[in-house]
Amino acid sequence: MNYPRGVKQVQTENNINYGNRGMGLEEDLNLTNSYYVDKEIAFIYKKPTPIQITKVEYKTGDARIKEAFFKEPSTTDYNGLYKGKYIDFEAKETFNKTSFPLENIHKHQIKHIRNIINNGGIGFIIVRFNKLGRNYLLLGKDLIEFIDTNERKSIPLKYFEEHAYLIDIGYVPRLDYLKIIDNIYGG
Amino acid sequence: MNYPRGVKQVQTENNINYGNRGMGLEEDLNLTNSYYVDKEIAFIYKKPTPIQITKVEYKTGDARIKEAFFKEPSTTDYNGLYKGKYIDFEAKETFNKTSFPLENIHKHQIKHIRNIINNGGIGFIIVRFNKLGRNYLLLGKDLIEFIDTNERKSIPLKYFEEHAYLIDIGYVPRLDYLKIIDNIYGG
Repeated sequence: MNYPRGVKQVQTENNINYGNRGMGLEEDLNLTNSYYVDKEIAFIYKKPTPIQITKVEYKTGDARIKEAFFKEPSTTDYNGLYKGKYIDFEAKETFNKTSFPLENIHKHQIKHIRNIINNGGIGFIIVRFNKLGRNYLLLGKDLIEFIDTNERKSIPLKYFEEHAYLIDIGYVPRLDYLKIIDNIYGG
Repeated sequence: MNYPRGVKQVQTENNINYGNRGMGLEEDLNLTNSYYVDKEIAFIYKKPTPIQITKVEYKTGDARIKEAFFKEPSTTDYNGLYKGKYIDFEAKETFNKTSFPLENIHKHQIKHIRNIINNGGIGFIIVRFNKLGRNYLLLGKDLIEFIDTNERKSIPLKYFEEHAYLIDIGYVPRLDYLKIIDNIYGG
């Protein structure tokens, strides 16, 4: 099965209407990662959102957070283990049709991806172009290559078409991005 | 430098009094991991505490969490990358002098460690015996071996003395646990 050709796509062989399900990329990846864990294929998790807790109320046997603030993440959102390899990535959606704005990724996340690929890990980003119905996996080395050789503040779609890998959308797993990792690094 | 022999130890060559500093294990590990990251030795981070956010207040350009609850972690607290290898561990302190109660580690965390070592990752626990002033690194395989062959609800200190590795306490880094990983797996 291939990726849906935009939101107008209606039915698949599994009778699932992907176009209308309104699932976010994060939910799709969480379902995919749960599938990988259940099948003992890979152990990749989304890190919890980092928050600064400033007020906690204790009642009998229960702690309730009464005040907290969102903090900037210092690393990427997803990491884990697959076939003995360290996997690390960030996932972002954009409604832009022609490019992916780099402001979506924090500078220290890019530094983190740079560290990962320089130290024998597999680092990448997954970018969903919502209006195109496409999910791309762009390897860290190609992300870094673009950033190091461009002044541009966004990565053109064309760069994804030439350097990134399209992730199939399926029923189970939803977004089998490890198939691409297998193809690149040998499964 | 070796580990302090209990809280009575007073001075080190760096004029730091470890016994009285009252640093928790988590803080020591965070400092150690920051050192590893700064020196580009390893990229290991503590995962944020998982919480369930139930109420958020939005003000101009700011989101404030007004109600949230602590959730049980589904994995271990620390993971990352070291020399191309996937590293994963849980860290716990105990005031018990003769054994480490296994209730400190959730069942699904033990399952997670089992998965990690079965899939080519390096998994372990770090246990601080506060009253002994000792920090042990116990490999996942030895933790699992104990659990699989014992009915006991705690791991005796003697098991640590025979199977675990003592982590040196230093100034920078505080707890150089990767030195032990080097010794075991080859640096």
